[in-house]
Amino acid sequence: MKTLRVELGDRGYPIFIGQGLMGQAELVKSYVKGRQVLIVTNTVVAPLYLSACEAAFAEFDVKSVILPDGEVYKTLETLNLIFDELIGQRFDRSCTLIALGGGVTGDMTGFAAACFQRGVKFIQMPTTLLSQVDSSVGGKTGVNHPLGKNMIGAFHQPECVVIDTETLNTLEDRQLSAGLAEVIKYGLIQDIEFFEWLEKNIERLMNRDPEALSYAIERSCQDKAEIVAKDEKEAGLRALFNLGHTFGHAIESGMGYGNWLHGEGVSAGTMQAMYLSKLLGHLSEGDVTRVQSLFERVNLPVKPPTVAEMNNQAFLDLMAGDKKVQAGTIRLVLLKSIGQAYVTGDYPGHFLEKTLTEWR
Amino acid sequence: MKTLRVELGDRGYPIFIGQGLMGQAELVKSYVKGRQVLIVTNTVVAPLYLSACEAAFAEFDVKSVILPDGEVYKTLETLNLIFDELIGQRFDRSCTLIALGGGVTGDMTGFAAACFQRGVKFIQMPTTLLSQVDSSVGGKTGVNHPLGKNMIGAFHQPECVVIDTETLNTLEDRQLSAGLAEVIKYGLIQDIEFFEWLEKNIERLMNRDPEALSYAIERSCQDKAEIVAKDEKEAGLRALFNLGHTFGHAIESGMGYGNWLHGEGVSAGTMQAMYLSKLLGHLSEGDVTRVQSLFERVNLPVKPPTVAEMNNQAFLDLMAGDKKVQAGTIRLVLLKSIGQAYVTGDYPGHFLEKTLTEWR
Repeated sequence: MKTLRVELGDRGYPIFIGQGLMGQAELVKSYVKGRQVLIVTNTVVAPLYLSACEAAFAEFDVKSVILPDGEVYKTLETLNLIFDELIGQRFDRSCTLIALGGGVTGDMTGFAAACFQRGVKFIQMPTTLLSQVDSSVGGKTGVNHPLGKNMIGAFHQPECVVIDTETLNTLEDRQLSAGLAEVIKYGLIQDIEFFEWLEKNIERLMNRDPEALSYAIERSCQDKAEIVAKDEKEAGLRALFNLGHTFGHAIESGMGYGNWLHGEGVSAGTMQAMYLSKLLGHLSEGDVTRVQSLFERVNLPVKPPTVAEMNNQAFLDLMAGDKKVQAGTIRLVLLKSIGQAYVTGDYPGHFLEKTLTEWR
Repeated sequence: MKTLRVELGDRGYPIFIGQGLMGQAELVKSYVKGRQVLIVTNTVVAPLYLSACEAAFAEFDVKSVILPDGEVYKTLETLNLIFDELIGQRFDRSCTLIALGGGVTGDMTGFAAACFQRGVKFIQMPTTLLSQVDSSVGGKTGVNHPLGKNMIGAFHQPECVVIDTETLNTLEDRQLSAGLAEVIKYGLIQDIEFFEWLEKNIERLMNRDPEALSYAIERSCQDKAEIVAKDEKEAGLRALFNLGHTFGHAIESGMGYGNWLHGEGVSAGTMQAMYLSKLLGHLSEGDVTRVQSLFERVNLPVKPPTVAEMNNQAFLDLMAGDKKVQAGTIRLVLLKSIGQAYVTGDYPGHFLEKTLTEWR
């Protein structure tokens, strides 16, 4: 087992990464303060891991709530199912919530923990690659609004993150690929060495080589933990993690939540950001091809959807709702070079339109 | 105009108290950081004060949303109306929300500000006595759940609180009385001198004497600001403000939100706490009568409802959902003496039942 740490003073916490961590009561018990534990999971994960997870918390008063699965359910309405359980079962302020599932489960459980009685503790137990390398670390929680992703939420850090890499054995291929989009992102924004490692080892990851997966998760979490420690509330640096996300969120919400997986939107969106970075003269044609090639080896989409509903104007309208918008300007994460990202609102508007038109 | 300050380091803020502050653009403009302002108000307050409030923010891009009025609408569903407006109108992270109304409006607007894009700024402009002396100060925000008051929320401090005492001229008598319940509370928990002042001046307050009202508001805000500065997140001391609230919340939710006003529940609930404090030997019969007499002079209920749905068991069940419950114990705010409150879970259970039975 590897242990990393998110250094955030009295809100700091460990990330445990290893095989078979799910059932280890000794690992998690010191992170539960009161007697009451509510495991929040979904209809896909519950049959696979709920009983192992319950066993780890057997010495507490454990209850569980099983939500419907999918991004389309990441709403205030579904969140209310968690509150119904907490309040109906008389959970008090000293309780602990456990997020057992992927990014949607983690984001909603964390947000429920942030809001229930104005804040209770929670633990992340991510079971998808995407949530293990990205969403379970850093305390961003929330739900979607029909007009924009993650528009309603809170910063609320977990007590610890338990990444059991064995859960990846049951992950479907499409979800594995989607998770790799976020892994590749870390290489692109700040870690050229990791990007080069990924180019050499991407097939091992696709074949679920445990050692390769462990390394990729650890390095991703390390990259994320470092930036979160410097910029918890996204005053600056942390926005770099949103490479491809402004384009990607537009695709996700424009196509209807759940039709494009988050990682798929990020993949296509990152390629749009690559193309715009090329128009600005930062990247060469060869750089763009190099990144595209890596996404393609992971079976991820590299172009946005071509449906009529996602024409340029619709795309721009969706992007204009992004959280990075300031005074009407769509700020984007772009690359200076592979391994060096920056945030800017200072680019010629016609370059953005050219990107939407030409990178199809 | 008087200015108080809630000392909370970089989350500290001023409370302005005075006549005709509503329309003063100079007073508020420095507390708005971006260009976008959303005024959140309700159907009762909008016809009275919305245009004056809009005028104060005329130099910004001002929009407004008018919610239905009343505690029964303090829900996640109504909260979503604020998000619809914010997202539909493309409000960005630099926006400022204005809570123009009573406690329900302030709690919901503050919670929306806490959650929109994971946190934006807001200003409290309370227009009822209750919100001016209590709910607008201290950063407690949230909504109700059918099974419990304020169960879903956040601590989120405003940028400033603007108390225009002229708004009390349009307040209906029942609302004025409800607000006085919270004013009396400050005297009871920590300020015997203020309690004695209230005994002498309660008719001036009922007659809306501007000078007396200003003094009562100022003293209440000062009492509240001091404790909030010491205990922002209610780790201890701040719980004292909940005198009468565990009983009172049970009445409010048991009778259906809005049928008993919050201040009415607090009045009857405080008398239940007085009776229990007497059973414990802290208060004399004379103390209880003295407090009862003050509430009666304000036309507030001093006994809980006698309907069948609020029998002892129902009352206890509702109280068991309170946020102060720890490990199954209902913790209560009681008095050692008039002007000296304390929080305890250590009282004989049959005294609580005796109180429910006998103080009817």
